[in-house]
Amino acid sequence: MNKKYVFFLFGRIAQTIAALMLLPALVAVIYNEYKCLSAFLITAVFSVVLGTVIAFCCRTDNRVIYAKEGFAIVAIAWIGLSLIGALPFVISGEIPSYVDALFETVSGFTTTGSTILTDIEALSRSMLFWRSFTHWVGGMGVLVFVMAIVSNLSERSIHIMRAEMPGPVVGKIVPRVRNTAKILYFIYIIMTVIEIILLKFGGMPWFDSIVHTFGTAGTGGFGIKGDSIGGYSNFCQIVIAVAMIFFGINFNLYYLLLIRRFRSIAKSTELWAYLAIIFVSVSVIAFNIYPIYESASDSVRLSLFQVSSIITTTGFSTADFNLWPSLSKSIILLLMCFGGCAGSTAGGLKISRVVILFKLILKELRRMLHPRAVTSVEFDGKAVDNQTLGSVATYFAVYVLCVVTAFIAISFEPFDFETNLSATLATFNNVGPGFGAVGPMGSFASYSDFSKIVFSFAMLLGRLEIFPLILALSPSVWMKKR
Amino acid sequence: MNKKYVFFLFGRIAQTIAALMLLPALVAVIYNEYKCLSAFLITAVFSVVLGTVIAFCCRTDNRVIYAKEGFAIVAIAWIGLSLIGALPFVISGEIPSYVDALFETVSGFTTTGSTILTDIEALSRSMLFWRSFTHWVGGMGVLVFVMAIVSNLSERSIHIMRAEMPGPVVGKIVPRVRNTAKILYFIYIIMTVIEIILLKFGGMPWFDSIVHTFGTAGTGGFGIKGDSIGGYSNFCQIVIAVAMIFFGINFNLYYLLLIRRFRSIAKSTELWAYLAIIFVSVSVIAFNIYPIYESASDSVRLSLFQVSSIITTTGFSTADFNLWPSLSKSIILLLMCFGGCAGSTAGGLKISRVVILFKLILKELRRMLHPRAVTSVEFDGKAVDNQTLGSVATYFAVYVLCVVTAFIAISFEPFDFETNLSATLATFNNVGPGFGAVGPMGSFASYSDFSKIVFSFAMLLGRLEIFPLILALSPSVWMKKR
Repeated sequence: MNKKYVFFLFGRIAQTIAALMLLPALVAVIYNEYKCLSAFLITAVFSVVLGTVIAFCCRTDNRVIYAKEGFAIVAIAWIGLSLIGALPFVISGEIPSYVDALFETVSGFTTTGSTILTDIEALSRSMLFWRSFTHWVGGMGVLVFVMAIVSNLSERSIHIMRAEMPGPVVGKIVPRVRNTAKILYFIYIIMTVIEIILLKFGGMPWFDSIVHTFGTAGTGGFGIKGDSIGGYSNFCQIVIAVAMIFFGINFNLYYLLLIRRFRSIAKSTELWAYLAIIFVSVSVIAFNIYPIYESASDSVRLSLFQVSSIITTTGFSTADFNLWPSLSKSIILLLMCFGGCAGSTAGGLKISRVVILFKLILKELRRMLHPRAVTSVEFDGKAVDNQTLGSVATYFAVYVLCVVTAFIAISFEPFDFETNLSATLATFNNVGPGFGAVGPMGSFASYSDFSKIVFSFAMLLGRLEIFPLILALSPSVWMKKR
Repeated sequence: MNKKYVFFLFGRIAQTIAALMLLPALVAVIYNEYKCLSAFLITAVFSVVLGTVIAFCCRTDNRVIYAKEGFAIVAIAWIGLSLIGALPFVISGEIPSYVDALFETVSGFTTTGSTILTDIEALSRSMLFWRSFTHWVGGMGVLVFVMAIVSNLSERSIHIMRAEMPGPVVGKIVPRVRNTAKILYFIYIIMTVIEIILLKFGGMPWFDSIVHTFGTAGTGGFGIKGDSIGGYSNFCQIVIAVAMIFFGINFNLYYLLLIRRFRSIAKSTELWAYLAIIFVSVSVIAFNIYPIYESASDSVRLSLFQVSSIITTTGFSTADFNLWPSLSKSIILLLMCFGGCAGSTAGGLKISRVVILFKLILKELRRMLHPRAVTSVEFDGKAVDNQTLGSVATYFAVYVLCVVTAFIAISFEPFDFETNLSATLATFNNVGPGFGAVGPMGSFASYSDFSKIVFSFAMLLGRLEIFPLILALSPSVWMKKR
């Protein structure tokens, strides 16, 4: 293990975070929130000093990294990031408990959107901004960001990207990793700007447009109102609903769009499956909730918004879906687990894995009937190799294992089964709200500190797709010599 | 598809069922229940006539069967068996609704033990006997029974056994399938007789000993008292607890015991994992429920009984575990899904699959660290081939898919989340009782007819391990020429 270089990179990340914190500091200046300003500046100074010291102490010429180092740096970066990012909330006194602040920050960076705040509107503007900004940063990936801006990175940093980007197969879209990172962030920024302008056009104030766009782009879901998006115009609701769907699509497809390779887009199995699942879910739920709203357009709008919010694991809401019929709630719970497309900012299992699992089942059925026939699983028009098939199936098993473990760990809480299970799924899949006490109008405030830490860990596991974190925490990875 | 031979075998099975029904008829004579006697005799006559006509019409010299025919015959046999087995309940008027009677019969044959009866003690003796006897027949398998007694079966009937016996790998323990079936039933009968005698010795009346042994042997769980086993002596409770554990062990191991191959037994990964899971679960639950009972011996006894009842998917109870703390309930829910060993009478995923899944996860972790290293999964001291690994992982995916589908199908019911989810898991894993309204002191009576049919189907899917039933119901299997 090239420990020096791993810590060196962490130093760089701490410096980056310090720089990022100047943005909410600016917001604090604009809104005259001097207590918050000092909180951001203190944290930034602390972070830049820490980062510089670490980077200086661990400077090394050995920039060789393998999968192992990739996992380690991603795990350390995300944990360190959350620990530092929570400081402004505590220093400013806006979230006095450090565990609460950590939960909120992890929920931000992992683009979950679960909150421990019972009165969101009481938070000051710059803190609301920071909270939503973490979504934007975490959505595309902190290390991908660092890769895009730092010039002298190891050429083998694909291992880092692979550990941070979600999905069963992560490829470079252009030969150089750094350029891939730049292209991804370029597309991300363009889409973000378009949404901000559209929301402003729909009558949202600038501040609201920006923070809600952060929440949409990262598929995070932190809002700034007690009723999430419910109070804004129908136009804004539809803009956000559609934007969420767009941010849940694999970003590689946007690159293909840019270089006009339309045929490759049309062949994307994942894209069509994703759109089909959305279409079917919206239809069923709209039909199911029609008796409540007694208006076809309202039912469709609310259903569309909620389906796109949940499948992309954003977690915004325009209605208290906690009060919807159980069929709709079951579908919502299922969509939470599905998640968006691989290579997007969404969480969950990812549609590509769901499709591959489904095709694996069909393959097994065929194999049982014709034990000697050779069958393969097709995806994007090509046969998937056995290695990937095995990984997908195993990922599903470890995914279920994590859900069950987290659920058991918090099962001593005095909440009902529905609350506990949906809270576990909502955090692990980076969705945000669940049902019952943690529904869209509720919060995680009444959970114990222990459970908040379990949930924080679950959010990190979900965002990093389990393996990097588990591997980085196993002593053998650090001890053994290569 | 060799349709003729498939239906011919079904004819033989209908005749067998008619013969089996003479046993409860005898009980009806003993207890002077003449209404029930006539119900059994009418059904037996109907069944023998039906079976003889079908067997005569479909007689054929072509006894060649493949996997396809194996699935078809198993699916038809189990559905036909349930439809016929429900008749005595309806004819005698003891369960007036046919859907209810069907649910109860499916629950019996699949060794689930879920009931729609709200007052079990009101049922007449011969019906209670028939209800529990279905557990005993279904436990080891109806077709295995037919194979053991019918002489002129196809030599390729291993396909039938493979479709009916649970577990990832089903092998003949001796070269001839018929002898394998005989050995299995011989062990089964010996163990049954021992338990009956022990229970009688512990103070249970003969009738109670016999029906409870049927429930234990098939890991079914139908009781004859409102409080299940709670009213019997501690000795009887412990006998049943231990017997359940024994019936949850792979029967091949008993054969190895008979032929004194102790070393092979000691190498059984599944056996040790099964015992370890039981030991850990009993300890944790006993500790967790200690504050309720305030007696170490009571806590251990109740915990042991419930753990062995749930992991073997029997479903007897000596306490209302619905009232236990959530940690214990979560563990119980998890054990429901684990199930017993492959090749036993228990349901669920099977311990061997759980162990293989766990090892697959470890393998994937190693592969991520060392992408080029060759790793394998060991089981019983031998490397498992990739085909089996893939099948186990896929089975897990289809297992979860079935649970989710059944859960969504019944989610319109007015019950809470916990009741619906545990009812789905309890039926699909062939356990019996769940939590909430379907807890050990409750019943499935208040579910709608639609849901009862969904649950019946779930029980059959669980017992036959999904694939045979799905394949037999897909038209392509019946249409296409080989």
